[in-house]
Amino acid sequence: MEPPALPRRVTIVDVAQHAQVSTTTVSKVLRNAYGASPAMRAKVQQAISELGYRPNAAARAMRGQTYTLGVMLPDLRNPFFPEILDGLTEALRGTEYQVLVGPGGCNDEQAESHVTDAMIDRGMDGMILIAPISSRSRLEHLANRVPTVIVGRHGHSAAYDTVSDDDLTGAALVVGHLAGLGHRRIAHIEHAETDPDRLVEMPNAIRADGYQRAMHAHGLASEIDIVSTTYTQEGGYVGARQLLARSRRPTAIFAGADIVAMGVLDAISEAGLLVPADISVAGYDNTTFAQLGQISLTSVDQAGRHIGAETARLLLDRIADRHRPSAQIKLSPTLVPRRTTAPPPE
Amino acid sequence: MEPPALPRRVTIVDVAQHAQVSTTTVSKVLRNAYGASPAMRAKVQQAISELGYRPNAAARAMRGQTYTLGVMLPDLRNPFFPEILDGLTEALRGTEYQVLVGPGGCNDEQAESHVTDAMIDRGMDGMILIAPISSRSRLEHLANRVPTVIVGRHGHSAAYDTVSDDDLTGAALVVGHLAGLGHRRIAHIEHAETDPDRLVEMPNAIRADGYQRAMHAHGLASEIDIVSTTYTQEGGYVGARQLLARSRRPTAIFAGADIVAMGVLDAISEAGLLVPADISVAGYDNTTFAQLGQISLTSVDQAGRHIGAETARLLLDRIADRHRPSAQIKLSPTLVPRRTTAPPPE
Repeated sequence: MEPPALPRRVTIVDVAQHAQVSTTTVSKVLRNAYGASPAMRAKVQQAISELGYRPNAAARAMRGQTYTLGVMLPDLRNPFFPEILDGLTEALRGTEYQVLVGPGGCNDEQAESHVTDAMIDRGMDGMILIAPISSRSRLEHLANRVPTVIVGRHGHSAAYDTVSDDDLTGAALVVGHLAGLGHRRIAHIEHAETDPDRLVEMPNAIRADGYQRAMHAHGLASEIDIVSTTYTQEGGYVGARQLLARSRRPTAIFAGADIVAMGVLDAISEAGLLVPADISVAGYDNTTFAQLGQISLTSVDQAGRHIGAETARLLLDRIADRHRPSAQIKLSPTLVPRRTTAPPPE
Repeated sequence: MEPPALPRRVTIVDVAQHAQVSTTTVSKVLRNAYGASPAMRAKVQQAISELGYRPNAAARAMRGQTYTLGVMLPDLRNPFFPEILDGLTEALRGTEYQVLVGPGGCNDEQAESHVTDAMIDRGMDGMILIAPISSRSRLEHLANRVPTVIVGRHGHSAAYDTVSDDDLTGAALVVGHLAGLGHRRIAHIEHAETDPDRLVEMPNAIRADGYQRAMHAHGLASEIDIVSTTYTQEGGYVGARQLLARSRRPTAIFAGADIVAMGVLDAISEAGLLVPADISVAGYDNTTFAQLGQISLTSVDQAGRHIGAETARLLLDRIADRHRPSAQIKLSPTLVPRRTTAPPPE
């Protein structure tokens, strides 16, 4: 069976012919310009709807706007990111903006460059980069081309706005909670970071720093124990296996993200140990996963939806006024204690 | 502090000036046309790299190609979809194509129309629609404009290709497994469907149909018990609460998707019942969630990565030859029994 030939795109010429008016008239109607009578306008609108004509976004892009916002997401598996996206899309509802998500490639600077270049090439009106790992100069280069909001990553730049969580406080909340339960051997699984820029700006690095500071503050400096893997389920699994193999096993593990805690719980269950009887576990992000009754993970809530909503607001604002001073929004996290944390075994 | 003014986009004119050649020469180099000497070529390439010139994608779109593929994802929270995306992006690696994901809005036909229109307006070279709920005529209308592959949804059309799982078999595998363990009161939580087109095409409707057929085949027709909610965690929770409130409670629940099973497990745990001692639970999709040691959910594996890879292959093929006959690929699922299913209580 032969499929029908693909019809070519309906153009302004087709609309003009169908409505039996000139292309100039169609153009006037499309631009809402003076000089088209209500009758003409109705005729053209009817032809547009009958032919299914859609103003060509590529042509619009040539004139400067695409009404498209690109969101770079480093990892589609991390259950925290949909929270941010929900906040974003809710805030954009009723506007003409369409969000398109570019998967960034977990921890892969080249993949990140590729997707951000692609967004610029495709004429996005604005970009939202979630926890990007690119160098600061690269981020500034991008933001100088297209209005950009950086989410999660700290650091002040005149070129872009940032919305982040106060990760130092978040880490301190976890350590304080565990120390308050009587834990001393509190280990941390971090997302490995070596780049000096990123060590002072990335949320993962700041959580690791916050963990160390809080351990010091609780007189537990000698118990500091950090395993460096990645913020993935696999990273949590691998990290926990290292910690469980220690001759002096930690009594609590602070995973830098809920997705890391998923792998930690997996490794602990595989080792035949019980949570929290043998070992306590805390995460970060307070995702729907943490809230599951069967999991009931103690976690830090950084209000992803609120982060998304603030990001949308800043980006639209910046698109409207590219020269306004840059803004840094830092949100305060809260601790949500659940069943994975309890006093250490005797 | 004043942020720097946004520099305007680097154009071909800038490149020509910088390289001290004509714009015609730059254009020749860009098009790989004859008539530009190697020396000229080197000069232009150097200017391009020094100025950070990027060929304007909007201009390319006017000429017909954007090298962008749009993926409509109905729900960013469903852990099955990243599997498909992984398969897609792996298959596209090394090509010029960039994947951009449009969130479709769970079970919202209007949101789905909005995102697919947006993709067409933005000149996507091809579209991948994952379990779309739009009418068949709407899907054909879209596919007649832009090469399209429909994933998950069954049904034959000359206008588009499909890649789906054999959901009838998948449901039969689950019922067969539970009946083999001795269960008779096997209930099913489906994603509500009333539209006649969708009742014969949507994976959720076919799974519900397969469940009923398999119950008949095992002599359990009188035990058929279906609750209609949605393929979300919330839908699973609400559905399971209805089932647990029955005077004659089911001994097993077949959740139509792993994300549904998440909510089911949650409701069961909240009711103080044990899995599988009091009640068995099976899902569908074999996501990383099902594989977690603490969850260990019996599930149907429909090989999401393979689905993604086949989808990429069909789409590139269709972009190259829009008039080839349409293809329907149906993949065979397998059952992965884990710890959430066991014989019913005495």
